[in-house]
Amino acid sequence: MISPILGYLDPVFLEAMDDTMARLRYLFQTENEFAITLPASGMGAMEAAVCNVVEPGDKIIVGIHGFFGQRMAHIVERHGGTAIRVEVDFGQVVKPQQITEALGANPDAKMVGVVHGETSAGIGQPLEEIGKIVRDANKLFLVDTVCSMAGAHIPVDDYLIDICYTGGQKCVGGPAGISAITVNDRGWDVINARQKETDTWYLDLTLIKKYWGTERVYHHTAPGPMVFALKEALTLIQEEGLENRVARHKKVGDMLHQGLTDLGLELFGDPANRLSMLTCVLIPDGVEDAPTRKRLLTEYGIEIAGGFGPLAGKAWRIGLMGYSAAERNVRYLLGALEKILNG
Amino acid sequence: MISPILGYLDPVFLEAMDDTMARLRYLFQTENEFAITLPASGMGAMEAAVCNVVEPGDKIIVGIHGFFGQRMAHIVERHGGTAIRVEVDFGQVVKPQQITEALGANPDAKMVGVVHGETSAGIGQPLEEIGKIVRDANKLFLVDTVCSMAGAHIPVDDYLIDICYTGGQKCVGGPAGISAITVNDRGWDVINARQKETDTWYLDLTLIKKYWGTERVYHHTAPGPMVFALKEALTLIQEEGLENRVARHKKVGDMLHQGLTDLGLELFGDPANRLSMLTCVLIPDGVEDAPTRKRLLTEYGIEIAGGFGPLAGKAWRIGLMGYSAAERNVRYLLGALEKILNG
Repeated sequence: MISPILGYLDPVFLEAMDDTMARLRYLFQTENEFAITLPASGMGAMEAAVCNVVEPGDKIIVGIHGFFGQRMAHIVERHGGTAIRVEVDFGQVVKPQQITEALGANPDAKMVGVVHGETSAGIGQPLEEIGKIVRDANKLFLVDTVCSMAGAHIPVDDYLIDICYTGGQKCVGGPAGISAITVNDRGWDVINARQKETDTWYLDLTLIKKYWGTERVYHHTAPGPMVFALKEALTLIQEEGLENRVARHKKVGDMLHQGLTDLGLELFGDPANRLSMLTCVLIPDGVEDAPTRKRLLTEYGIEIAGGFGPLAGKAWRIGLMGYSAAERNVRYLLGALEKILNG
Repeated sequence: MISPILGYLDPVFLEAMDDTMARLRYLFQTENEFAITLPASGMGAMEAAVCNVVEPGDKIIVGIHGFFGQRMAHIVERHGGTAIRVEVDFGQVVKPQQITEALGANPDAKMVGVVHGETSAGIGQPLEEIGKIVRDANKLFLVDTVCSMAGAHIPVDDYLIDICYTGGQKCVGGPAGISAITVNDRGWDVINARQKETDTWYLDLTLIKKYWGTERVYHHTAPGPMVFALKEALTLIQEEGLENRVARHKKVGDMLHQGLTDLGLELFGDPANRLSMLTCVLIPDGVEDAPTRKRLLTEYGIEIAGGFGPLAGKAWRIGLMGYSAAERNVRYLLGALEKILNG
């Protein structure tokens, strides 16, 4: 973050961009040439993934198991598409059969999009079977991994994901305000076949590709220090090893789940698909939401989040991501929570 | 940039946001309540300024005196608007009379947009008269100050500018990848009267306003370290004083202009409207563009830019912005250039 400021065409910076692309391919476990950063937060990446594909009138099937899936469907509509919502309750996951049915009812759909790690519910959407179904139907498969990439096993190519994006700041462990996206040839074929360019110029991947590719055509001033910081975060991921990193998230997530249960708290949602890096736990009866979180923050320096949507005031959301996915943090939080709840 | 990572609703961060807004009002010389950062580069701010106003079919008059004006017109079209282009050659400025005529011919136009500092040509567009003309016609006046804010005198309220944005990294002296925008009540009246929400969700100011305002509704994860860095840059601007800072840019710009002329080089464009912070100078006959710039970079550690559009290969662009707007840098560059050109 304190790297010297370089011009967006400085040879040293161009080299860092190429290096970042190589490291992003490792992160996404992909052979895709196109794996780049975007000068926007994870939500900007969601919009880029949607708006580059969707043309007015296009049908997009969106599997929704929480707040961010709803948002994806909304963004489809912003760009003139029709969102076919395949919804399940917060805490559940979309079943492959539901996608099969939606594709059967909408054979003209262009893409199926899902969120892997629903930060709003603490639940991870299984992807492998859906990936096969979508590929068999010859549609694009879009997956949001803002919450979970680098903390869960999501091999983009193996899971037949055509477009995948993530944020910089969660399990990836870099700064907020930058994101990353990869698109395979199937995705590019669809993007290149558009009748009209996308309405959102800033996130137009065909333009941004010309800057990250050999042409080096100016599009925006790259956020240099952010790219360097993300590159460093990706380097740390490679040094740790993606598999080890996922195992670490799993270990501390399990430890937190067990510890909360031991405290008498109830975890939210489908036990088979709980995320390691984001734990959603119900607030016990008689315990106040905001005052408890405030005590954690002011007395212990621990920030946990409140509930979203139907879980507002009913659940807490506890993140263990990247650097913070450490046993000491789990122990410290459990100790603090015990003091506050029982003290 | 190395500030601790805080949650997007952490009280300390919310306080920093409020503080940043106050400092942005100083920067923009505005009484507008709404003066915020955007989680995107200056080009993202251009898109935000355009897409929040433009609805399909809207006519927008764009005064164009270089590459970035062309881009603004293009972005208007991306969002379904009709761009009425009022163009002058690179190196010239749009005349108030031209705007009067365009408004006369297009009484249904919704907004007039211009770029103040055309980085592509090194020319600053006079704003005061045009501001009055646009206000008299009861249209919105949009001004891009990515290149020039904090390095030139652009009092947003006095110049009757309704929507104004700038980047973080140029004369403001903060990081690239974050930008700032201010909108007055006239602007909000138009935005709030839209028939349909803007197509670009990520840059929807009505949503972002709810996060920066008292409601604190989640929209995106704020790029915390970038906000802190920009806040620090704004603090330095206040410590120096906007007037002193503008005078400093003027002084070193004049020094560079004189020095280049003394070296026998010819400055590009209308002498009355040359920018201080971005100098466009013609490449002398017989001197090669890229090899000269490469020598400056590798032998002296100085990066200057090549020409844009009609000036590609014909001009150099030399920036003296923010921290780098210093006499020692001018002397160092002039010395290096003299060695290379005459040695």
